[in-house]
Amino acid sequence: MFNFGNVYQLLAQDTRLQAWLNVLPQQLDDWQSQSHGDLDRWLRALKKISDATPDHIDMKDSVSVRNEQPLHEGEQQKLENILKILHPWRKGPYHVHGVHIDTEWRSDWKWERLLPHISDLTNRTVLDVGCGNGYHMWRMLGAGARQVYGIDPSTLFLVQFEAIRKLMGNSQQAQLLPLGIEQLPKLEAFDTVFSMGVLYHRRSPLDHLIQLKDQLVSGGELILETLVITGDENDVLIPADRYAQMRNVYFFPSAKALKVWLEKVGFIDVNIVDENDTSLGEQRSTEWMTHNSLPDYIDPNNPSLTVEGYPAPRRAILVAKKP
Amino acid sequence: MFNFGNVYQLLAQDTRLQAWLNVLPQQLDDWQSQSHGDLDRWLRALKKISDATPDHIDMKDSVSVRNEQPLHEGEQQKLENILKILHPWRKGPYHVHGVHIDTEWRSDWKWERLLPHISDLTNRTVLDVGCGNGYHMWRMLGAGARQVYGIDPSTLFLVQFEAIRKLMGNSQQAQLLPLGIEQLPKLEAFDTVFSMGVLYHRRSPLDHLIQLKDQLVSGGELILETLVITGDENDVLIPADRYAQMRNVYFFPSAKALKVWLEKVGFIDVNIVDENDTSLGEQRSTEWMTHNSLPDYIDPNNPSLTVEGYPAPRRAILVAKKP
Amino acid sequence: MFNFGNVYQLLAQDTRLQAWLNVLPQQLDDWQSQSHGDLDRWLRALKKISDATPDHIDMKDSVSVRNEQPLHEGEQQKLENILKILHPWRKGPYHVHGVHIDTEWRSDWKWERLLPHISDLTNRTVLDVGCGNGYHMWRMLGAGARQVYGIDPSTLFLVQFEAIRKLMGNSQQAQLLPLGIEQLPKLEAFDTVFSMGVLYHRRSPLDHLIQLKDQLVSGGELILETLVITGDENDVLIPADRYAQMRNVYFFPSAKALKVWLEKVGFIDVNIVDENDTSLGEQRSTEWMTHNSLPDYIDPNNPSLTVEGYPAPRRAILVAKKP
Amino acid sequence: MFNFGNVYQLLAQDTRLQAWLNVLPQQLDDWQSQSHGDLDRWLRALKKISDATPDHIDMKDSVSVRNEQPLHEGEQQKLENILKILHPWRKGPYHVHGVHIDTEWRSDWKWERLLPHISDLTNRTVLDVGCGNGYHMWRMLGAGARQVYGIDPSTLFLVQFEAIRKLMGNSQQAQLLPLGIEQLPKLEAFDTVFSMGVLYHRRSPLDHLIQLKDQLVSGGELILETLVITGDENDVLIPADRYAQMRNVYFFPSAKALKVWLEKVGFIDVNIVDENDTSLGEQRSTEWMTHNSLPDYIDPNNPSLTVEGYPAPRRAILVAKKP
Repeated sequence: MFNFGNVYQLLAQDTRLQAWLNVLPQQLDDWQSQSHGDLDRWLRALKKISDATPDHIDMKDSVSVRNEQPLHEGEQQKLENILKILHPWRKGPYHVHGVHIDTEWRSDWKWERLLPHISDLTNRTVLDVGCGNGYHMWRMLGAGARQVYGIDPSTLFLVQFEAIRKLMGNSQQAQLLPLGIEQLPKLEAFDTVFSMGVLYHRRSPLDHLIQLKDQLVSGGELILETLVITGDENDVLIPADRYAQMRNVYFFPSAKALKVWLEKVGFIDVNIVDENDTSLGEQRSTEWMTHNSLPDYIDPNNPSLTVEGYPAPRRAILVAKKP
Repeated sequence: MFNFGNVYQLLAQDTRLQAWLNVLPQQLDDWQSQSHGDLDRWLRALKKISDATPDHIDMKDSVSVRNEQPLHEGEQQKLENILKILHPWRKGPYHVHGVHIDTEWRSDWKWERLLPHISDLTNRTVLDVGCGNGYHMWRMLGAGARQVYGIDPSTLFLVQFEAIRKLMGNSQQAQLLPLGIEQLPKLEAFDTVFSMGVLYHRRSPLDHLIQLKDQLVSGGELILETLVITGDENDVLIPADRYAQMRNVYFFPSAKALKVWLEKVGFIDVNIVDENDTSLGEQRSTEWMTHNSLPDYIDPNNPSLTVEGYPAPRRAILVAKKP
Repeated sequence: MFNFGNVYQLLAQDTRLQAWLNVLPQQLDDWQSQSHGDLDRWLRALKKISDATPDHIDMKDSVSVRNEQPLHEGEQQKLENILKILHPWRKGPYHVHGVHIDTEWRSDWKWERLLPHISDLTNRTVLDVGCGNGYHMWRMLGAGARQVYGIDPSTLFLVQFEAIRKLMGNSQQAQLLPLGIEQLPKLEAFDTVFSMGVLYHRRSPLDHLIQLKDQLVSGGELILETLVITGDENDVLIPADRYAQMRNVYFFPSAKALKVWLEKVGFIDVNIVDENDTSLGEQRSTEWMTHNSLPDYIDPNNPSLTVEGYPAPRRAILVAKKP
Repeated sequence: MFNFGNVYQLLAQDTRLQAWLNVLPQQLDDWQSQSHGDLDRWLRALKKISDATPDHIDMKDSVSVRNEQPLHEGEQQKLENILKILHPWRKGPYHVHGVHIDTEWRSDWKWERLLPHISDLTNRTVLDVGCGNGYHMWRMLGAGARQVYGIDPSTLFLVQFEAIRKLMGNSQQAQLLPLGIEQLPKLEAFDTVFSMGVLYHRRSPLDHLIQLKDQLVSGGELILETLVITGDENDVLIPADRYAQMRNVYFFPSAKALKVWLEKVGFIDVNIVDENDTSLGEQRSTEWMTHNSLPDYIDPNNPSLTVEGYPAPRRAILVAKKP
């Protein structure tokens, strides 16, 4: 179905990452042998996208491609139809040959909030844990990264990523692998590691932080983004059941508590660089994601609360260094 | 060194526990093949204790044995000398043939606080996670339990337990296994599970609670005791480094937060049955535990704080049911 | 389906065999979770056999049980009908309450050929590799063995064995485990090991001999029986395809070659104690085994050849000692 | 110590061989972490060999390299001294810049005996099982192979191979991996597989043949060379102890018996293409291999026997096809 030979070549050439070959090919083989719902349907759609090299690629200020000679209306409509087979699109937006993939999330807003606060990505090897369909991976390349690996277990996200990659001229500098963080060995090989929107889904947040640290080189940088509550170092919310209708949610610390956690597992130079209530414009239903979204999960009578009565979504970004 | 054949026989006879044989013998074999510090010295001491059946055994109101004909003073001194080789004695106290093992902890106080609140142990099969040298295991038998298994990875505790067992007439109703909780398969076989003084040492408290639940039969009862802080459902302390000089400490929730956690992982009928500031009389140095103890870890100027400035030890006992 | 708790108890009590618990329960658990063709049908038959203690049991000169008060004709017919559900019966014969299970094999003949040549089984712990339905296991007990374990992967053989065991008064001295030899760890725990009719089915005969040696205590005795050809130390037949219609046949050495092989892997005092052309009376179809049998596999024009043109079946028994 | 990144890149690029990445990196990692006797000494020698590209390379009629401008006598002596640190040299001969590595074996003789009988190697991917220091691997490339992988567990052979490779201009078309055949997964990826001088060292010859078959593509060719005895299809020698002073020797079939074995495991078109008594000129001590050799293992009074009284070495080459 998928051939990961290109990834293996990249790893074989990079002495820091070679050890990943000890486990990755077997893991991906196991993954291939599982069944993946609508995969055949998605792959048929993917096949219909040709991988010509576009005339203009922007990854710095957006993720967009276009040719000097734009697509005819009929071609553009055909492309849109193909991409809509890969519904729902959550992370974006993407602009490809006149098609505007208006995703559930304005992931560009998050990127703009964090970019001023992180170390220059130029020439860095980057890992994006929980990368979704890879939107931020392209922005990382746009910010100068040498090579970006993203992991996310969702098959649909992988297919969406491959669709965008074909449209982006088939770059090998971004690689998405269908893995969970717990499948990574201790690589200590990445200059920068991102974990955004993952921690509150982990039953053991300290173990998550340790797993992230295990991926960094000494001196490497972690960018951690997660849902938080307001409060001091001892404030931590654990929803008894759902939060904004999400299951599988666990720890929502305050940003200050999260800072202590990072220090506890050995990070240094920990900074809370951003804290932000998620607006209803940043996450909402669109024609590319027609299911319910954040506005449906907020108490209609009190926008500061979720339907379950918890504080409405608030996010913090912390930056920390591995000593 | 140790022969666990008696345990295996018990498990083979108990259809609920038979599945433990799938992993236990190999685990104990691996344990045997590791090195264990002073074990040879301890085993020589252990060998000197004869396993005669005492005339009087009390496990209901204390843990004590005596014969009609008390030991001569010389014999008693000899027994005391042997038992002191197994220093330090943390959990107790024990009274054996006139020797009063005055342990660091008055574990009997904790027992008396919890006993009124738990289901009658009569005929129950019980697991004690983090059982120390097994003091409470004897009290569980004294309260009517049919069979008690304790797990604790410390080798010294196993030797102390075997010493007491010999003096107690070599009962097979109590069995201590040198294991950590993470080594237990999902047995779903115990009527009552105790976890006392363990949770704050676990990096992932929710996983600990799930592991405990996995050991209980449907309808079974958990007795959970751990260090807590005062506060409401969102109050959780994670010490950045040490707490009362202990390393490897992680989550100190409030009792109310702990109640939410238990419910989150699926327990029902959760009750906070006791909450108690640990007094300097309950945990202190003795001639049977000559190292530092709680009084040395309290701020000399403010007994409500540890030397690190955290709230002084406070413990809660919660009782919960598996549906 | 089957409960192997009795076996585990026996192993737990025997310090030599306790190490078997490191792997056996997990193996049998895996076996239980596989599907086993007609097992449900067989188990229903098995359930209909009551396990009363018979008045007379003979295991010394035959395998037979009877009561002072014989079964009525109707009861006897009913018993016969039940046992015939477990068709085909290959190893025997058995005489149970007037029912004569006339099996494909006269296994008693083989037993009589070997018994004079082996060490007295009195009080020995015995392993029978490839034990079939266990006929010889009863004869081993009849010859004084303390405890006999048989292994054979066939589910039907296990059910037949359990049927006979119930009729024999439910003795726990014989235990059949549904395992292949390759599943045994190096136990070095048996005084006598039998391997009869197995070696020519093994793709690696030397590894088979080593596996057998690994089960014996130092000084223990191996009784090895297999198909051989006539010839000297360098004569070994490997049928290109089938032999007497059997697939999965590999090495047929001469008895002399087999002696060298035993010595090569470290056995001493190796003796060829019997060599015998299998007669058409020893292995044939009966009403308890209605499929084809040896007479159908012999060249009708030349009884010294199989239908494939190989030498007709000839068997050797070798006895050897582990130093 | 060794970096196998180049191999991993080759495998990642070859869809037939990619599955080898499922196990190989971990195996080589384990191998690296073992201790390897004189490895440091050997690596120091290896480091002294510069890897300039020679003007003339011959792999077709010999394995030799030379420059237009020969080495000065002092340089040549220095090179010889370095190479002699890697003593003993068993397979060869090699001619490198005027140094004639006169190895124990005239491996070129064997090559010339087999070459006329095998399928043209042009563009084939080849596996050489038990490749020694890789002499035949170079000859395979000389005969047109696209890529050659050799496996041999000996560390010295790997160092010798790397020394020759450097002198040969550092070709990546030949790769030696320190593995035993039992470590290979079922790759079904090679057009031609060689196993020369291995089978008589295997305790289970049929399993060895199956392992070789598992490496071949459908239609692929096996070249099998091993020690044989004279005789017919049922003649197989198994030395009770040593053979020509070698330990770890097992099955010496006749060439005809070996043909049956190959057919038994599923090869077709099996041909005995050569049978040859090993002459004392083909295997003997030299100044590059100063230990005892074949002439020392032959009965001084009867050159047709080994010192143990077995038939003197005789070798057969068989060629077979996987259907």
